[in-house]
Amino acid sequence: MKPSSKFILLLNSLLIFPAAGLCDEPFRHVISSTSPSRNDVEWRTSSENVTPHCDHHWWIQKSTLHGGRQEGVEQIVINNGRMEIVLCPTRGMGIMSVRMGNVHLKWDSPVKEVVHPQYINLASRGGLGWLEGFNEFMCRCGLENNGHPGTDKFVNNVGEESEMELTLHGKISNIPASHVEVAVDRTAPYAIHIKGLVNERFLFGPKLELHTELIVVPGENTFQLKDEIRNTGSQEQEFQIIYHANFGSPILQEGARVVAPATDVQPFNDHAAKDLDRWHTFDAPQAGFVEQVYLLTPKGDQNNHTTALIHDKAFNTAASISWSLNQLPYLTVWKNTGASEDGYVTGIEPGTNFPNNRSVERAAGRVPKLAAGESRHITLTFGLYDGLAEVKNALTAVNSLTLSGEAIDSPPIEVPKIDRLKPRQ
Amino acid sequence: MKPSSKFILLLNSLLIFPAAGLCDEPFRHVISSTSPSRNDVEWRTSSENVTPHCDHHWWIQKSTLHGGRQEGVEQIVINNGRMEIVLCPTRGMGIMSVRMGNVHLKWDSPVKEVVHPQYINLASRGGLGWLEGFNEFMCRCGLENNGHPGTDKFVNNVGEESEMELTLHGKISNIPASHVEVAVDRTAPYAIHIKGLVNERFLFGPKLELHTELIVVPGENTFQLKDEIRNTGSQEQEFQIIYHANFGSPILQEGARVVAPATDVQPFNDHAAKDLDRWHTFDAPQAGFVEQVYLLTPKGDQNNHTTALIHDKAFNTAASISWSLNQLPYLTVWKNTGASEDGYVTGIEPGTNFPNNRSVERAAGRVPKLAAGESRHITLTFGLYDGLAEVKNALTAVNSLTLSGEAIDSPPIEVPKIDRLKPRQ
Amino acid sequence: MKPSSKFILLLNSLLIFPAAGLCDEPFRHVISSTSPSRNDVEWRTSSENVTPHCDHHWWIQKSTLHGGRQEGVEQIVINNGRMEIVLCPTRGMGIMSVRMGNVHLKWDSPVKEVVHPQYINLASRGGLGWLEGFNEFMCRCGLENNGHPGTDKFVNNVGEESEMELTLHGKISNIPASHVEVAVDRTAPYAIHIKGLVNERFLFGPKLELHTELIVVPGENTFQLKDEIRNTGSQEQEFQIIYHANFGSPILQEGARVVAPATDVQPFNDHAAKDLDRWHTFDAPQAGFVEQVYLLTPKGDQNNHTTALIHDKAFNTAASISWSLNQLPYLTVWKNTGASEDGYVTGIEPGTNFPNNRSVERAAGRVPKLAAGESRHITLTFGLYDGLAEVKNALTAVNSLTLSGEAIDSPPIEVPKIDRLKPRQ
Repeated sequence: MKPSSKFILLLNSLLIFPAAGLCDEPFRHVISSTSPSRNDVEWRTSSENVTPHCDHHWWIQKSTLHGGRQEGVEQIVINNGRMEIVLCPTRGMGIMSVRMGNVHLKWDSPVKEVVHPQYINLASRGGLGWLEGFNEFMCRCGLENNGHPGTDKFVNNVGEESEMELTLHGKISNIPASHVEVAVDRTAPYAIHIKGLVNERFLFGPKLELHTELIVVPGENTFQLKDEIRNTGSQEQEFQIIYHANFGSPILQEGARVVAPATDVQPFNDHAAKDLDRWHTFDAPQAGFVEQVYLLTPKGDQNNHTTALIHDKAFNTAASISWSLNQLPYLTVWKNTGASEDGYVTGIEPGTNFPNNRSVERAAGRVPKLAAGESRHITLTFGLYDGLAEVKNALTAVNSLTLSGEAIDSPPIEVPKIDRLKPRQ
Repeated sequence: MKPSSKFILLLNSLLIFPAAGLCDEPFRHVISSTSPSRNDVEWRTSSENVTPHCDHHWWIQKSTLHGGRQEGVEQIVINNGRMEIVLCPTRGMGIMSVRMGNVHLKWDSPVKEVVHPQYINLASRGGLGWLEGFNEFMCRCGLENNGHPGTDKFVNNVGEESEMELTLHGKISNIPASHVEVAVDRTAPYAIHIKGLVNERFLFGPKLELHTELIVVPGENTFQLKDEIRNTGSQEQEFQIIYHANFGSPILQEGARVVAPATDVQPFNDHAAKDLDRWHTFDAPQAGFVEQVYLLTPKGDQNNHTTALIHDKAFNTAASISWSLNQLPYLTVWKNTGASEDGYVTGIEPGTNFPNNRSVERAAGRVPKLAAGESRHITLTFGLYDGLAEVKNALTAVNSLTLSGEAIDSPPIEVPKIDRLKPRQ
Repeated sequence: MKPSSKFILLLNSLLIFPAAGLCDEPFRHVISSTSPSRNDVEWRTSSENVTPHCDHHWWIQKSTLHGGRQEGVEQIVINNGRMEIVLCPTRGMGIMSVRMGNVHLKWDSPVKEVVHPQYINLASRGGLGWLEGFNEFMCRCGLENNGHPGTDKFVNNVGEESEMELTLHGKISNIPASHVEVAVDRTAPYAIHIKGLVNERFLFGPKLELHTELIVVPGENTFQLKDEIRNTGSQEQEFQIIYHANFGSPILQEGARVVAPATDVQPFNDHAAKDLDRWHTFDAPQAGFVEQVYLLTPKGDQNNHTTALIHDKAFNTAASISWSLNQLPYLTVWKNTGASEDGYVTGIEPGTNFPNNRSVERAAGRVPKLAAGESRHITLTFGLYDGLAEVKNALTAVNSLTLSGEAIDSPPIEVPKIDRLKPRQ
């Protein structure tokens, strides 16, 4: 063997070393960042390169969308070998859709493209401008405020209590992430981490940061969001967050059902009160249907964790969200089963609060605060279930949370008596 | 001849075949689209490649503009061998300018660049923010609303009648097209079609689509807009559209004249009423001139088609717009003959309505509705006339519509008596 | 010598000729322009290529930033061999930072990236949306208006006095420059000029242009802004401008001081009045500190020029701004010494006016007008001083403007008696 050949062999070993997972350091790649300034217009990696010993063929692809109001929107698709998740850094790290076999978490919004925030004027239409970009499977509502538009107080630059018009569901889903990074564990189970930082911070305003991490293990049917909301300012700061998860056809259909153990269910208004006993079941798309919103106080297990689940009529497909009630004590169910062309959808929305205007929520004690430098950590686990067996298992787990362990085809909680209800504004 | 040469000859024939127009399938090219996501930053085609048998050398060029607030704005120039049309997909498929010889359809707006909609806040300046990008030859006003800003009612997400502040002339001219496509007929007269889709649709709002097609035949002095406004929602939907065609120097000058057969002319306000008898003639630029607006009910021919025309003092250049009064029953003439540096311009504006606030137009029965799935089709033909002979022919055609067939240098209609006038709000 | 070598020698001479400064024509390069449309995504030049005989190694670099809300923001770094200036054409030709040795002119705003104007809604938060992008060392406030948000009158399109909600500090710092050009003198001292045009002009609104020129001489510790504000309209036009220069750590610290000769100092409100006698000195960062604003009428020299200066406690670093009181008669000192994480900063802000709402300033006679075609020229000179010797020299120059020539460690002017004060709104 000649020296040069030996050298090449050595070089090969060195190159293979990290890719072979012999090294425990996770693979890391910064996709975009403001500091130092960078952005991969297109980027891709996959199991072959990063975790060659992993049994599941996973891949991650960053791309930039084109055309109309989605020109320049950034998108990351994560395929874990079983499930495909579409993330949107440009829209506050929201999740556009998730797909696994027959389970497709998405809805057919009248908004057909992924709208760049540059086209959103949150204040338009009396504070409802947020709707002009709304088509995610899951977007966050917050951070300074969420819920209905309307007047609320704030402290202005000269230290005086002043008024501003809050806009529907706040800003965070229309703020591009300032830092997006991929990490993949080199050791089994080779978890994939997509990290993002979204800033909602400025002078004389909140100094809130959302640090989000989506974690998905190759081959699994679940994924996690591990969020941290951090007050980087020197002053106590209110915040609000609702995770607005939206389910449309095909999982939403006539006879579909939400299963969510709750100690209390309140209708949002008189219109919702009329159908309180049907808060958890769905009809077929109906032109002209006006939204009905229900405000739940979920029931937790011994660790104060809870799960909400939606399944189709035949128990063939389902999806669940699990979280800690210490982190997100409230759950809103949004029934918006209008015509397909108008956006047939239901929302399952864990949050720090209900979607009233912040002034209402503050009065009700549902607007938490963060001390200077303090963080709130929130972990949500999403599960997808394809086929009767998987759906039944998932339902059994949820029903173990209910008071009486009802059969899976009955409502998981007792419906509150109508005389207990007082519509909330 | 050797076999290889024969093969090359055959290959040539095959290659020529589609380009030679032996194939009747139109040439098609998608310039940009949201689905699948694509966008040609630069693209060009021409008669040589597509219609080699066409006598007229035409070309189409898509480019992307740079600098200041026009960075990223998309533009398509269509030259039909005689006339050059500049289209702007980024600004709702508006027409920036048209030129044919001495006829130049454009105006010198104080806005000097093609402003990207990202810089427009329609709500600014009391709802007049639209003006900060306004410099097109022809832009559309609509679709949910157009006309003056001010409060009007709408139905909000919880199904209640609510109020919103309408903004001047609505959104459509600041929404980028979601799909832009070129088609060219392979058979004479080799018409060029530029198709665009502009979406004004979202949850709890209108689900309106503008499907527009600009059609121009190589070598001709006219072009057509074939628009379709489609209600894709499940509910009845109001809509409004005004085609805001704007004429500045050189066609607009002292002694220029609008010729438009009308059965009624109303001044927009007291200020316009003062000069009602001069609604159709123009003065030289005059610093401090305050706009005067006239509301016409046009007169149609036996097919209910009408034409409005503008010509310079010497009858050397003219331009016309023809349309069906079944589609657009009203015509607004906007005289804004201030100083050149302030935007010396007149608007000839066929529409479904007059440019009052929508609440006023609704009360007057001038806000049409589309049923679920219904479309309104609108066709406008623009003509350009260079030289006395062409202008006289065009005028004769318009005058044939008038009651008494006046000579071309007299007003084409009888001016309504002043006592018939009641200023409209 | 062979002919070919001779030719190469000749070619070299030709190539060197313009670069060697034998030609007196300045070097010119258009970085971006709307007409003709162009934009260098990246561009660089330096002394070696342009002024090889210059003793100082200077360079200019244009780049485009990436990530989050700074995607697409354009930046020009000018290094004159001693001092580095970061300009931002996208944010109205503002100056992000200046650095020379230990002197660093910048502040740590809670806004961490250079925010593209597309993300700024000036009207948000009750007209305080400007703050969501505010992190420059120096930005301009204007041109139609600046100062506090609130209702003011304007003339609308139909010539009527109407009302609009002014937004904090106007639009100009969120308007990208329409033309950016570099010029470098070929003769000593080889001054570098960065020219920019920012348009604030539209129909039925102001037709104001900002023509700005930043001039810096290689090797020097000063730079100039030569601005022209031009009314291109045919009508008289109000305008306002404040140069909002902001100083944070390290020059701002406990014991730092502003030195500004003034004939009058007024507190902005009661809160500022409480500490009037300390208007020129600074404390350490203090969580919860509410801004205090002081309104100065500066004193000029025989040419009506004045200088304001800030220095650290130990007189080791300082910075000054000099200008003509004929051009900018007022000076605002903004003390905002809250916690470091909240944006510890002071503003030294020469202007045509104080930062009250325009309606207040108009009533006080501090809103100037430009006749049709008229310009206001404004020249500001910024100086940076590193080390005790330089700082003392600079202070001596400023103190020569004061009434009594106090020692450098005493207040440069007599503080007005408290009974002279009436808080301004």
